[in-house]
Amino acid sequence: MMSTGFIRDQWYVAAHAHEVGEDLLARTVLGEPIVLYRTADGTPVGLADRCVHRRFPLSLSQRVDDRIVCGYHGFTYDRTGACVAVPGQRRIPRTARVPAYPVVERDSLVWVWIGEPDRADPAAIPRAPWLDAPGWTTVRGLEPLAARYGLLVDNLLDLSHETYLHAGYIGTPEVAETPITTEVDDDARVVHVRRRMKDVACPPFYARSTGITGRIDRWQDIEFHPPCLYLLHARIAPTGVEPAPDGTDPHAFHAEIVYAITPETQTSTHDFWLVARDFATDDAEVSRFLAESNRTVVLQDVAALNALERVIAAEPPGFQELSINIDTGGLAARRLLNAMASEASGAGPLPDGRSG
Amino acid sequence: MMSTGFIRDQWYVAAHAHEVGEDLLARTVLGEPIVLYRTADGTPVGLADRCVHRRFPLSLSQRVDDRIVCGYHGFTYDRTGACVAVPGQRRIPRTARVPAYPVVERDSLVWVWIGEPDRADPAAIPRAPWLDAPGWTTVRGLEPLAARYGLLVDNLLDLSHETYLHAGYIGTPEVAETPITTEVDDDARVVHVRRRMKDVACPPFYARSTGITGRIDRWQDIEFHPPCLYLLHARIAPTGVEPAPDGTDPHAFHAEIVYAITPETQTSTHDFWLVARDFATDDAEVSRFLAESNRTVVLQDVAALNALERVIAAEPPGFQELSINIDTGGLAARRLLNAMASEASGAGPLPDGRSG
Amino acid sequence: MMSTGFIRDQWYVAAHAHEVGEDLLARTVLGEPIVLYRTADGTPVGLADRCVHRRFPLSLSQRVDDRIVCGYHGFTYDRTGACVAVPGQRRIPRTARVPAYPVVERDSLVWVWIGEPDRADPAAIPRAPWLDAPGWTTVRGLEPLAARYGLLVDNLLDLSHETYLHAGYIGTPEVAETPITTEVDDDARVVHVRRRMKDVACPPFYARSTGITGRIDRWQDIEFHPPCLYLLHARIAPTGVEPAPDGTDPHAFHAEIVYAITPETQTSTHDFWLVARDFATDDAEVSRFLAESNRTVVLQDVAALNALERVIAAEPPGFQELSINIDTGGLAARRLLNAMASEASGAGPLPDGRSG
Repeated sequence: MMSTGFIRDQWYVAAHAHEVGEDLLARTVLGEPIVLYRTADGTPVGLADRCVHRRFPLSLSQRVDDRIVCGYHGFTYDRTGACVAVPGQRRIPRTARVPAYPVVERDSLVWVWIGEPDRADPAAIPRAPWLDAPGWTTVRGLEPLAARYGLLVDNLLDLSHETYLHAGYIGTPEVAETPITTEVDDDARVVHVRRRMKDVACPPFYARSTGITGRIDRWQDIEFHPPCLYLLHARIAPTGVEPAPDGTDPHAFHAEIVYAITPETQTSTHDFWLVARDFATDDAEVSRFLAESNRTVVLQDVAALNALERVIAAEPPGFQELSINIDTGGLAARRLLNAMASEASGAGPLPDGRSG
Repeated sequence: MMSTGFIRDQWYVAAHAHEVGEDLLARTVLGEPIVLYRTADGTPVGLADRCVHRRFPLSLSQRVDDRIVCGYHGFTYDRTGACVAVPGQRRIPRTARVPAYPVVERDSLVWVWIGEPDRADPAAIPRAPWLDAPGWTTVRGLEPLAARYGLLVDNLLDLSHETYLHAGYIGTPEVAETPITTEVDDDARVVHVRRRMKDVACPPFYARSTGITGRIDRWQDIEFHPPCLYLLHARIAPTGVEPAPDGTDPHAFHAEIVYAITPETQTSTHDFWLVARDFATDDAEVSRFLAESNRTVVLQDVAALNALERVIAAEPPGFQELSINIDTGGLAARRLLNAMASEASGAGPLPDGRSG
Repeated sequence: MMSTGFIRDQWYVAAHAHEVGEDLLARTVLGEPIVLYRTADGTPVGLADRCVHRRFPLSLSQRVDDRIVCGYHGFTYDRTGACVAVPGQRRIPRTARVPAYPVVERDSLVWVWIGEPDRADPAAIPRAPWLDAPGWTTVRGLEPLAARYGLLVDNLLDLSHETYLHAGYIGTPEVAETPITTEVDDDARVVHVRRRMKDVACPPFYARSTGITGRIDRWQDIEFHPPCLYLLHARIAPTGVEPAPDGTDPHAFHAEIVYAITPETQTSTHDFWLVARDFATDDAEVSRFLAESNRTVVLQDVAALNALERVIAAEPPGFQELSINIDTGGLAARRLLNAMASEASGAGPLPDGRSG
């Protein structure tokens, strides 16, 4: 069975920025229940979602100004997690405090640090600037996945599956046929997988959004920043159109397809997805089409990965996967993830030398 | 994680009296499946709900006169649990018998003894005479709770939660604000928690049932007879109305709110509730209102406690609750329950020194 | 608790023949997920339902000619389980192969061998020739049972339960009242249980299908070929009608009621049922009636056995069944099954000396 270990001491995406507002939002990350909200000054806050008194979920409680009043007995917490009122008495126990999580809003995503708070460095959060940059338009969603984290990492690092699982949407025969190149930056801890297709069919996802009717050159440049952020730099252009010598590329269409892969429990995952584009940026119909199409593609992945999780749950121990060239990206990701697991606080290398 | 040990050698409420009749009733108490019915002479009977032959539930079988004929192969049991007929042969195996539980009907409740039958003493059953006494009218119900027994004990021993969980029904701010006094009778094994509120708002539950429009004096005198019977002696009167020197109290309104807390499995509980009153005893509209209101309040508790059970199921070991003054009643109850657990047949003290 | 061990190195019915066709059929047998289909030349094929690459179920994949193309990344398997194509490269790893199961179609049933393929001998498959023989008409079905295999074996070997569980359909009081004779052929490994009823009531199942209006002689001759095939040779005739001295029996009605009992998981079972008859063979209304009636009877069994499985799941260890004369067939079956379990590859005798 695949390992289900968590990698702590890392930043994970807990929410799209727009999900965190006045209401209390419950979200479990790496098995830790968190309540998220935004204070009156706009700052996102994340507190442990369990009252110190009798465990009641704060997310089921009342927000009063920037405080949370527990819905069971009224224990009241400020934005730092400190308890500032208890029922029936004036003295507040010194230890009455729920843990506060380091939370950072960046590039339209809300990141939370799971691990030792002292080790949280916001500068370590990988960036995806297109998601809220001028000149780009983004559509997004979040699908619940009833499968372990590693299955989605495998899925995204090997896009040959587009040909089989996403035919008619984003897959064409050439994706599976075209070899990839894989590079690992062990210092920066990034996995790069590149597939450059020349003179190939344009899948409906891009044909309808860009208006291209003929054959295309299609680039899929993956950049995976484990454990959470996955960037797919997609370039679509009519066949033969090349970037200019100065690096600008005005005659191509660019999409930045971003996934944030956040473990919820050991066998479930938050599958955040975003599609940013630099074309037709004011065209609501293109936005609607891309949102609907990408959600369909994500749900195809969800159905497949949920099936894999059921296979794993039912199988006896000892199954050995067989890997081929298309898996070099996924295997590299596992190697990096395993190294990160062995460094994290309170965790050694995973028993089977894997991280997913 | 909270302990989930059962306390055997005790009486537990298995049913409201009206639930036990001609039909076979299945009910699990402390993990033991029991079939209940009432014989032609009106006596309630409780037998183990599992045929000795191939385990078929007797509660899914046929009642013929005062006997049960197993619905699978026809093994027939009398009211004592003795097998009196088997299919295909005249000889009945000597050991063919299902256990019969000591069962006592008292105060409109059907109590069952879980433990060594020889130790069952009906005199040890705590009383709640108002439930079927002249001059009183009672409404009642039973809600299934998907949470462990101890969470409901905690809930009922600390009524400060009325302010937060039952606002608009039975809670007002003064409940949480008013200090309690707690007394434990270690010999009789009763926990008393008293809250006496003077000149406070009248919650809708009492305003509409009593007709009082102004401010009230409100008493909440809890009497918990562990493990099962919880009595809340509630007194409501216009502010300043006192009992007479002779102890009579003709100008106040009295409600006897009774809960029977019966573990079903280690993580589910039968939440029996009853509200007896000495006012408007013939007023069907008041009965309807109190039944509906109290059921709503119980369902608010059920939702909260089910949420706590889910929190406990998902959390790693080691959570330490933080207790304050309002918890003295609940902590006293735990202490008594733990003492009872250590005395019961076949059970030592619970590993974490708790009983809930 | 009853043992839930599997008996490997045996043939099991995986499907009715008509279920296996052009489409890919997923079926789990003894915990092993299998994909079944029929090649263009009509041969049934069974392969392990898990791609060697990343575990995707082949049953959720595409069939192309006689091959299966994995729906996730396109690994392609021929009817022998050999991988004949992988994406993105020409070299196919030597070990790329999914296990192929020995599969035999016989008497309108598709049998699969679970165990060491080298030990699979089609001659060992027990026969039920009436199921597709001239002069016979068969109705059939398959019901999922959420209960362990042994509970259905017990059920079918002791038909006294017809009186209680199937009254009004196939049961009459005389079934439970009439003694049985049990014989075990330890060499051929067959359990025989015979019940010969004379001058008894005709249950609706036979009255309406045969047209008999009076009393009958009714034979129930069971032949159980463990682990999977159960034959009930049923003979119905007006009271006093005997077979001719030469063994022919032209004035009686014969039904061959067949069950195939195939473990799906340790606590679920495929309950295949078939009713073949030598009367009214062209009467569609009789076929419809027998199909509907037998399905009702099977669903009554399913409800009862599912209840037993829930009893077993909830009970503490140590329950001892009590057996009487009616159980001699079931106990004999358990003894044979236990002997078979101890011989099978990789399995010793079951810990509790039982097999069911």
